[in-house]
Amino acid sequence: METIHMQGPVCPIPLKHNETIVMGHGAGGKMSQELIRDLFQQVFDYEALKVGNDFGLVPLPADLPRPGRLAVSTDMHMVTPLFFPGGDIGRLAICGTVNDIAMSGGIPLALTAGFILEEGLPMQTLAQVAASMRAAADEAGVQIAAGDTKVAEKGSADQLFINTAGVAWVPDDIRIGGQYARPGDKVLVSGTLGDHGIAVLAARGELGFDADVESDVAPLNHLIAAVLAAAPHTHVLRDPTRGGLGTSLNEITHQAKVSIWLDENRLPVKPVVQAACEMLGFDPLYIANEGKLIVICPAEEADAALEAMRSHPYGQGAALLGEVRAADPGKVLLRTLIGGTRLVDSLSGEILPRIC
Amino acid sequence: METIHMQGPVCPIPLKHNETIVMGHGAGGKMSQELIRDLFQQVFDYEALKVGNDFGLVPLPADLPRPGRLAVSTDMHMVTPLFFPGGDIGRLAICGTVNDIAMSGGIPLALTAGFILEEGLPMQTLAQVAASMRAAADEAGVQIAAGDTKVAEKGSADQLFINTAGVAWVPDDIRIGGQYARPGDKVLVSGTLGDHGIAVLAARGELGFDADVESDVAPLNHLIAAVLAAAPHTHVLRDPTRGGLGTSLNEITHQAKVSIWLDENRLPVKPVVQAACEMLGFDPLYIANEGKLIVICPAEEADAALEAMRSHPYGQGAALLGEVRAADPGKVLLRTLIGGTRLVDSLSGEILPRIC
Repeated sequence: METIHMQGPVCPIPLKHNETIVMGHGAGGKMSQELIRDLFQQVFDYEALKVGNDFGLVPLPADLPRPGRLAVSTDMHMVTPLFFPGGDIGRLAICGTVNDIAMSGGIPLALTAGFILEEGLPMQTLAQVAASMRAAADEAGVQIAAGDTKVAEKGSADQLFINTAGVAWVPDDIRIGGQYARPGDKVLVSGTLGDHGIAVLAARGELGFDADVESDVAPLNHLIAAVLAAAPHTHVLRDPTRGGLGTSLNEITHQAKVSIWLDENRLPVKPVVQAACEMLGFDPLYIANEGKLIVICPAEEADAALEAMRSHPYGQGAALLGEVRAADPGKVLLRTLIGGTRLVDSLSGEILPRIC
Repeated sequence: METIHMQGPVCPIPLKHNETIVMGHGAGGKMSQELIRDLFQQVFDYEALKVGNDFGLVPLPADLPRPGRLAVSTDMHMVTPLFFPGGDIGRLAICGTVNDIAMSGGIPLALTAGFILEEGLPMQTLAQVAASMRAAADEAGVQIAAGDTKVAEKGSADQLFINTAGVAWVPDDIRIGGQYARPGDKVLVSGTLGDHGIAVLAARGELGFDADVESDVAPLNHLIAAVLAAAPHTHVLRDPTRGGLGTSLNEITHQAKVSIWLDENRLPVKPVVQAACEMLGFDPLYIANEGKLIVICPAEEADAALEAMRSHPYGQGAALLGEVRAADPGKVLLRTLIGGTRLVDSLSGEILPRIC
């Protein structure tokens, strides 16, 4: 595991190697205060947290048109293992919520972070995860303005669960959401499918071979800003996480009462991910992504959106997948390589537990 | 347990008695969608949730002066047992975050709810908890605008953990927080100390006798509005939860670099709570409350604040506890019944795990 640990940012806190979480760290008294002071406030040195109230204050940007709306979201994270190629639970927790609130087309303002720690968790693990959260939050340009920590008795939780919630400010003239997909719109995705899910499986040793694949976990708010600048009439932004692209597109067809048609030969999948999926009997359409963006926009803005994505580090593999139609509302249909048509249903049941 | 269950709102959803949570409910596919549609959306029938995006949109109130700030907070809840006299984990989760954001003096706008469900959790338990959350949110007048659910394998979590996060709008002219306590200020509390902690202990059967005590868990935002109307120059609002009144006041003395003096004969404690504490070797000053409010305000507004609290259902037992001084910054001191002075330190270590 050591080499995987080292992929993340270096933990900035000197800790004794044998320090572990004990129940007192969750009691709200002196040990809780020491954990906050010696670990969390060292890594999360935000003004809102330093004040020491039970709430964090976030200024509304003074230069934005008013009144606007707030977009809020929340994500519970319980990935195993905690560290995997390309990321860890900390980066995942920050990116998951930054992405969910950014899909509103709004500007992320602040995050909150809640921790459930299992008694016995090495302090070094927590510090490393916190450092990774800080790095991801810095990359996204969003502050963590409030936090909470509870400790569960050994055996009552599995190492470390993290909740993140977030709030974004959404101008009144922005109307982005699954319900706004319209017949004639083009459907784009920012890159290859299934990297996150297969990377986590590989980290668990469940592939049976060494797959050279990293999770795509990344904050997408800057990519989204570039897309909206190029394609200002974008109707839908969605990140296909649990359930994969197939499930996300199904949700959108139900929200907007449209159908979505995809070309199988346009689906971007890395050969190693394709190989892993074939071996395990999975379909990349249902494997979780944590750094991919679906864009649904008017046909006349599709080229500009595609170009904007391809000019961004997180959108270099962007592809046009297909289009939105009025007929067969609620259905996702795939034009297959051999010229047939296949119904792409939502994911049914569980294929990859503890993936995010 | 049946009689304790019945204290909460009646679950409005017809469920089969043998339905339980399985891993597929956390996979993001069809079973997740069914859980959301058949349970959560039945109880949480908020517009923001019905739309079906990964974010919920919340309008900023159009009639408020701008720009203002946002107060955010988050709370992880893992109380055991899930149901106890006077409340349950659902009511606790809503009130915990409503109270934390309301302590800013702002207006709560929206909450998010994140669930970790242990495989095998009875669906009826989840529905009952959700109904209790809805009732508490309605009482507070705050909507739940986003949610997330994950399922942990049996043994990887303990029944049900809930995160709530929330956002409040805070006018620019409000300056409330622990750092604003000033020498000469009076220190008030809205009622008796330690009811929540002792009620949960009693529900666990750890008291050894039948204690007729209910948790005080309640949303305090309406009580706070009444206090601020009566005492508009209030400096500090704080809810003494984990760690109790003693720990909360210590935090404030450190934030504001002042001391706080309390009169032991003014501390409101129910006889049954006092008896339980004496038997167990606890001090009510360190027992968690979930529906009590500390108010620190200028002396000239103290009577008005006290009167406003006593006129509200959640503040009938309000009391003046003491005052803020400049000397001995960082210390809380108790004038004892026998005429001495005792240092009240922060809670040290863990006395009551899994209390909130």
